[in-house]
Amino acid sequence: MTYRPKIDINCDMGEAFGAWRLGLTDDELLMPLITSANVAAGFHGGDPNHLDRSVRLAKANGVGLGAHPGYADLQGFGRRTLKAPAEELVNDIVYQMGAVREFGRRHGVPLQHVKLHGALALDAGADPVLAEAFAATIEAIEPTLFVMGMQVWETVKAAQARGLPVIREFYADRDYGPDGNIVFARKVDRMDPATVGQKVLRACREGLVTTVEGEDIEVAFESICFHSDTPGSLEMAKGIRAALAEGGIEVAPITDVLATI
Amino acid sequence: MTYRPKIDINCDMGEAFGAWRLGLTDDELLMPLITSANVAAGFHGGDPNHLDRSVRLAKANGVGLGAHPGYADLQGFGRRTLKAPAEELVNDIVYQMGAVREFGRRHGVPLQHVKLHGALALDAGADPVLAEAFAATIEAIEPTLFVMGMQVWETVKAAQARGLPVIREFYADRDYGPDGNIVFARKVDRMDPATVGQKVLRACREGLVTTVEGEDIEVAFESICFHSDTPGSLEMAKGIRAALAEGGIEVAPITDVLATI
Amino acid sequence: MTYRPKIDINCDMGEAFGAWRLGLTDDELLMPLITSANVAAGFHGGDPNHLDRSVRLAKANGVGLGAHPGYADLQGFGRRTLKAPAEELVNDIVYQMGAVREFGRRHGVPLQHVKLHGALALDAGADPVLAEAFAATIEAIEPTLFVMGMQVWETVKAAQARGLPVIREFYADRDYGPDGNIVFARKVDRMDPATVGQKVLRACREGLVTTVEGEDIEVAFESICFHSDTPGSLEMAKGIRAALAEGGIEVAPITDVLATI
Amino acid sequence: MTYRPKIDINCDMGEAFGAWRLGLTDDELLMPLITSANVAAGFHGGDPNHLDRSVRLAKANGVGLGAHPGYADLQGFGRRTLKAPAEELVNDIVYQMGAVREFGRRHGVPLQHVKLHGALALDAGADPVLAEAFAATIEAIEPTLFVMGMQVWETVKAAQARGLPVIREFYADRDYGPDGNIVFARKVDRMDPATVGQKVLRACREGLVTTVEGEDIEVAFESICFHSDTPGSLEMAKGIRAALAEGGIEVAPITDVLATI
Repeated sequence: MTYRPKIDINCDMGEAFGAWRLGLTDDELLMPLITSANVAAGFHGGDPNHLDRSVRLAKANGVGLGAHPGYADLQGFGRRTLKAPAEELVNDIVYQMGAVREFGRRHGVPLQHVKLHGALALDAGADPVLAEAFAATIEAIEPTLFVMGMQVWETVKAAQARGLPVIREFYADRDYGPDGNIVFARKVDRMDPATVGQKVLRACREGLVTTVEGEDIEVAFESICFHSDTPGSLEMAKGIRAALAEGGIEVAPITDVLATI
Repeated sequence: MTYRPKIDINCDMGEAFGAWRLGLTDDELLMPLITSANVAAGFHGGDPNHLDRSVRLAKANGVGLGAHPGYADLQGFGRRTLKAPAEELVNDIVYQMGAVREFGRRHGVPLQHVKLHGALALDAGADPVLAEAFAATIEAIEPTLFVMGMQVWETVKAAQARGLPVIREFYADRDYGPDGNIVFARKVDRMDPATVGQKVLRACREGLVTTVEGEDIEVAFESICFHSDTPGSLEMAKGIRAALAEGGIEVAPITDVLATI
Repeated sequence: MTYRPKIDINCDMGEAFGAWRLGLTDDELLMPLITSANVAAGFHGGDPNHLDRSVRLAKANGVGLGAHPGYADLQGFGRRTLKAPAEELVNDIVYQMGAVREFGRRHGVPLQHVKLHGALALDAGADPVLAEAFAATIEAIEPTLFVMGMQVWETVKAAQARGLPVIREFYADRDYGPDGNIVFARKVDRMDPATVGQKVLRACREGLVTTVEGEDIEVAFESICFHSDTPGSLEMAKGIRAALAEGGIEVAPITDVLATI
Repeated sequence: MTYRPKIDINCDMGEAFGAWRLGLTDDELLMPLITSANVAAGFHGGDPNHLDRSVRLAKANGVGLGAHPGYADLQGFGRRTLKAPAEELVNDIVYQMGAVREFGRRHGVPLQHVKLHGALALDAGADPVLAEAFAATIEAIEPTLFVMGMQVWETVKAAQARGLPVIREFYADRDYGPDGNIVFARKVDRMDPATVGQKVLRACREGLVTTVEGEDIEVAFESICFHSDTPGSLEMAKGIRAALAEGGIEVAPITDVLATI
């Protein structure tokens, strides 16, 4: 039996800043290949102009809109930890969610999900206090908003404990540790699109991934994640889509994916 | 006949930044004296922590919640012009509105109005292109949101032309020029609370103010504005309230004020 | 025998930001009471305008000019840790030193010392790798520049190991732990000036301080530090000066202090 | 007679920010082709890490080190005007000069020149008050530092009036107006390297350039400027070098260029 006959694909979008770009891939080319967009909100990347453009692109492609809050550290692209009280970090998250949601409101696109970025995602994923503060805040703001993240993260567990809907992720372009978490990397090299495609296809079919230590572990997910700043991200995305198509896995909006579970 | 038997009072709130304060007056003391709060959204002042606190204070005092977007210039407190295309400035405004609105959502307080801050208010007030871009965007986002500003500003005129509801202001602690606009000041000195109170009371009763050139001009407004960073703002606010009470003018939420017109 | 018959007094200066202020004490009142100024360089506080004013004030009062680099976190006032590689943090420090030094050059005031701020001071003080990278960089830039800090900090030890001149500090308005380090506090309350004065006087006479656990420990220092953002800092500074004057300890420039050792 | 048998070539360097890049050309490839580097100082582009790398690259290639201060507007890349008092803008410039100079000090590279960036260069070039404040400040800081800019700019005139040494520029990748100033462009397209090379060669030989209105005007300069963020900048730089080599114009350090005048 196939683990996930239908699957969502999510990708970080709108991570340019002012005149600067990350990598060579334009969001315009990636947006048609995904079903959920995690839109940067200006703290670790993005700015109001890129935000507006990203929401327009998501709308034009029928892609689900997500807020992608990160640490307030543009220079570090949200990949450096800023040690602040949970209450302050949650305020930063609320602020960024509002920014993304308002552009959605402007263009008639509802907010579908929230997904934390970079070091904030990993830190909150490992910190039950921050995770709980985050989940409680999401419940107060909108108890039907999807919380996106990895099944092993405290944030996802805290959301589930409160009955909030979650979208669990499989990371196409990151290595897995034996604990089912991804191995953090400040820099990721170009990958072979076919290899990534096979890794993703196997996960969708069997619900398994091989860790950096060579063992197979089970993974639970409803969405595949890849990063637009991974070198060669466009080819990688196409490799993932090709492998899924060949393997008979349908890429679909998250509500369709969940309806099949 | 009294020009305004009921009147709204608005004040900028949440303009501290991190550990820093502006002036000596705590928002906690001012909030009970007003009916509409213009909450700073982090570009010219405020930050997510102060934003959260301001929304809580507004809720606790039954004060209408407003977004107060400014130029992206913390160091200049939004009192220096940043010459950017109208489209970019509108994106900055949308972003800041969303931040304020989301904290309102968190605490169950709907957004009542939007009021531009400092140099952005004056620049947009004088620039029909920017004003029209602003009004069109507000209409797209929420056509029932109040646009707050001076009757002579292009922003208010553009909002009115589109049928958007407006709250016109009378500035208690700024001087008026012969054109009905306020005279911009980077620094404002302490004022006599009783004098300010009488100026406000006369405006409410007669709909008149004396300009810097000594002439009386008509003013049209539904809200009185004073600034929390004007030295002695707490005493000034009390002076305004005392004069209004003595003169039989009722301070009331904007919807009540409008119902009497 | 008196431990320190002559003593330097240092204080953080220029920590306002734009229109915002920290506490109520103006630097203009504090500068005449100190002999070394640690001038904020814009990352955790201060900005180019306040920097210029601080250097002018230091010059007018014959106060030694120091650079006071902190984490790049204005909102957190440099009191939140930003976990970055040592190489990046050192680059941040070099940048801030240059900014302070250039204003000194503008006004004919040489740079006397460098002192890290807040969480960066404590983090580098506890991290031998960062401390060594810092000391090596100071040696490359200017091997005769004073490194200011606590005797127990890795930064001071690393500087001493390289033969760089150091100014060791005694913290008047912070509590001491049994390890001779200060206990970090995000918020400090007003203190009795006379009590602080006696604590400082005893340290100068006997080289001793009582820890939070009630034991006396030896302290080695050539400068007394107090913070301008401690509530009541002006009265505290006067209390320190009064106690020292009464006790026959002379407040003097650091070179004079060192000449008596 | 050849107008400039020897010529300096300057280019903006270090304008990346954190993980972001502008264009595709790496500074490492451009640095060997120039003799003066204008290094971004963090206000409009660059950050301490990129600054350090740029100074190392300049040193390794024997390139003259320049500070390249811009408006405090990362999002706008210093190409949007921030209307601030001259005194404040000069403080911003001093701050940025110090940052660049300190990295030079770290690596044993003296500061050769200062060149304003983008909108600040054009605004100061057109504003005698700001230009005079700038020149007076440079004189106070270091009266032998080169001020780089266009002959028609008020900044260069103010520097010359004070007897400060100047480096006048010829802009290879910008169009000239009839007043001898360049036409400001927020976006510049790829250019034919051979065409740019011939334009530069003619300027060096004849001291002439054709304006956008088709007339020839005289230009006075000691350095050729091109921009690293102009698309195809590497090929353009090679085109300039090839044309100059073919035409017998020697690319040389600014001191050599000036010795031949």
